Amino acid sequence: MSAAPRREAEIYGTGTPTREAIERLASRWTVLITYALEDGPTRFNDLKNRLGVSGQVLTRSLRDLERDGLVARRIYPEVPVRVEYELTPLGGTMCPVVHEIRQWAERIGPAIGEARAAYDQRPPSP
Amino acid sequence: MSAAPRREAEIYGTGTPTREAIERLASRWTVLITYALEDGPTRFNDLKNRLGVSGQVLTRSLRDLERDGLVARRIYPEVPVRVEYELTPLGGTMCPVVHEIRQWAERIGPAIGEARAAYDQRPPSP
Repeated sequence: MSAAPRREAEIYGTGTPTREAIERLASRWTVLITYALEDGPTRFNDLKNRLGVSGQVLTRSLRDLERDGLVARRIYPEVPVRVEYELTPLGGTMCPVVHEIRQWAERIGPAIGEARAAYDQRPPSP
Repeated sequence: MSAAPRREAEIYGTGTPTREAIERLASRWTVLITYALEDGPTRFNDLKNRLGVSGQVLTRSLRDLERDGLVARRIYPEVPVRVEYELTPLGGTMCPVVHEIRQWAERIGPAIGEARAAYDQRPPSP
């Protein structure tokens, strides 16, 4: 064996700030919502249509992002009331990382699809 | 309203290669497993201890990564049999992205923790 291995369980254990932040960013909805909100403040239904996500999942995802200080909800006292979501300055720090994830996904996605198809055609392993 | 919004639902819709790749990478276990496997081939129980994850979740995560061509499982016909997991060359392309995610998480994690604590102390919104 090599020297003592790194202990991710301690450094990145559940409840540590780093782990919580990884879990917030490493989520499909965070990635897709952040990408959509880069265009500027967006209404709930516009987000819902753009992402093709259920209202329930979007509500929960936006609430989690708001709780973490990454997304702000603005209420305009119009009739009917208008509610928009936007990235906070803290949320804006996600944009370069989300771009890296998207670029990787666009570049590597087809190879993953090929690997998956090949795997599914293999005979079951003994 | 601005010009026609981007249609993430079409570009990144469920089942497209880019969306599938985003979902694979944007997962806490992919991030943590990739980071651990950067050190080289690793046995199942070592991974399990380092990540502090249940065997069931680790088994499923490794199988998903293997199916996608990102992780390889090597079986050494010893007694008892030795099984190690390692990143494939395709899986190695995740490393720079995972580093970005980790660096962001280490930098921003404390601010998220503060935002979360402040949010939880707010009175309920009307």
